[in-house]
Amino acid sequence: MSRQQRDALDAMLRTAPRAETPPTPQEQRDGFAAAMTRPAPQDVATRRTLLGGRPTLELEPAGASGRGRLLYLHGGGYVIGSPDTHAGLAGELARRAGLRAMSVDYRLAPEHAFPAAVDDGLAAYRELLAADTDPRNLVMAGDSAGAGLSIATLLAAREAGLPQPAAVVLFSPWVDLTLGGASIHSKDDADPIFTGADLRAYADLYVGAGDRAHPLASPLFADLAGLPPLLVQVGANEVLLDDAVRLAGRAAADDIEVTLDVGPGLPHVFQHHYDRLDEADAALDRAARFLTTHLGTERLAPAR
Amino acid sequence: MSRQQRDALDAMLRTAPRAETPPTPQEQRDGFAAAMTRPAPQDVATRRTLLGGRPTLELEPAGASGRGRLLYLHGGGYVIGSPDTHAGLAGELARRAGLRAMSVDYRLAPEHAFPAAVDDGLAAYRELLAADTDPRNLVMAGDSAGAGLSIATLLAAREAGLPQPAAVVLFSPWVDLTLGGASIHSKDDADPIFTGADLRAYADLYVGAGDRAHPLASPLFADLAGLPPLLVQVGANEVLLDDAVRLAGRAAADDIEVTLDVGPGLPHVFQHHYDRLDEADAALDRAARFLTTHLGTERLAPAR
Repeated sequence: MSRQQRDALDAMLRTAPRAETPPTPQEQRDGFAAAMTRPAPQDVATRRTLLGGRPTLELEPAGASGRGRLLYLHGGGYVIGSPDTHAGLAGELARRAGLRAMSVDYRLAPEHAFPAAVDDGLAAYRELLAADTDPRNLVMAGDSAGAGLSIATLLAAREAGLPQPAAVVLFSPWVDLTLGGASIHSKDDADPIFTGADLRAYADLYVGAGDRAHPLASPLFADLAGLPPLLVQVGANEVLLDDAVRLAGRAAADDIEVTLDVGPGLPHVFQHHYDRLDEADAALDRAARFLTTHLGTERLAPAR
Repeated sequence: MSRQQRDALDAMLRTAPRAETPPTPQEQRDGFAAAMTRPAPQDVATRRTLLGGRPTLELEPAGASGRGRLLYLHGGGYVIGSPDTHAGLAGELARRAGLRAMSVDYRLAPEHAFPAAVDDGLAAYRELLAADTDPRNLVMAGDSAGAGLSIATLLAAREAGLPQPAAVVLFSPWVDLTLGGASIHSKDDADPIFTGADLRAYADLYVGAGDRAHPLASPLFADLAGLPPLLVQVGANEVLLDDAVRLAGRAAADDIEVTLDVGPGLPHVFQHHYDRLDEADAALDRAARFLTTHLGTERLAPAR
């Protein structure tokens, strides 16, 4: 069934209407929320709380083990998306891993430009550690811009002398705001969601006239030494394909344990389409196994 | 224990004596066989046979299921190595996957230059298919030059209109005989086995004055469309690291299912050190699971 599932998903994604005048950020947020929101799974209890001073959606699967914690950072180009739009995706990952998750509503651009999102990510991470969460029991995940932000958060944590978590899962990471990957052009026709121009517009709103190659905005250009094991999943039908491939290469060059999984015929953050796309369920199961396998692993704060 | 295991392995590999005058190919073969040969596991029966006109070591694990077949191509820079030196590695993969394996003694350079090895790989693959092996039950694996040769063999099979196998495992593939990867230089100190000069000497013997970027000599530069799912494993302490990373990127660009696993602190074809290096056992188990998971998958001959 999966070939038909993939083709149906591709066709559905291509029907998204294009506005004649560029929508405002708020219109983009409303449109994204209306089109993409998936609620938390039925057997995942949700609770609104605060983490690092930001509103946070806590997702607690029935029967979650006590010790492990998942910090989740949603995608949306640093401009759109929220813990509510991603309650399904984060909740499914939490449910399959049996982990209580915290999905942070970090500040968005253009109202709050770089590095506000990184500051919020670091504050959330710091509060989790301060709340007696053993870093060996802490894992992290994010999609798209939220995956880039996950890496940036851990780089900021490293600079702050904080320990690293046990493992990180990255769905279709956006890690190069300079759009330097060959797939920005070579996958332009294949990608049913984005063009390079869409991404450039997000980068404009997030970084403005700032340095797009700053390692906390584009962690592809960071020294990744000391980061925990990474699992990177990406679809082959993405202009962001080479962000994932190059991030894996960068991590490998820096002697980091990394696994890259590329799924043919699949779009950006295809994991969002669980329960209707076999590859999404398989990827989420694999991501959950990766996180739970690494839980409990001791990682010392790297010497800097 | 694994950090100590890795360090001990690294130190052991660095003790290999360097001859004052360059050894002849036969001296290299003898030295490699004396230093590196590991015999087939005790519960794997071996038998000498022929495949595609070449001597072949058949490895049959106790309790191997009848249907699946593994075609194995050993490494050694297209100049050294044999099914006997790699009987342990191929046998361990066959044993863990529960598959009968055929390890082919393809012709070596400089006595037999490119494309003799590819011709032998294709002849072996063709004979396996002709012997009523359903391609859905056929998988392939290789290490180093044998991993590059595995890809070249499947490209040749594609051009010949033959169906593809169900999956391929590549240990530390050498796929760029032009030595264009940044890791040729950046990992020169970290790699306890090779320098770029060592690899250049092998390429000289294999391709001579020919085109090192020929897609059957350097399959990194080939169109990989139609190839089966690939699992690429590589150590981070390899001058060939970027061959693996770039091959994964090339496969992804060509819409091929690919998984890349990078192991920090590990040398070239670290899987050879099973039973004394935890990462080697984990990698072989994972490779075996990858092969058996894909067995039985129908793959049509690609339209060309």
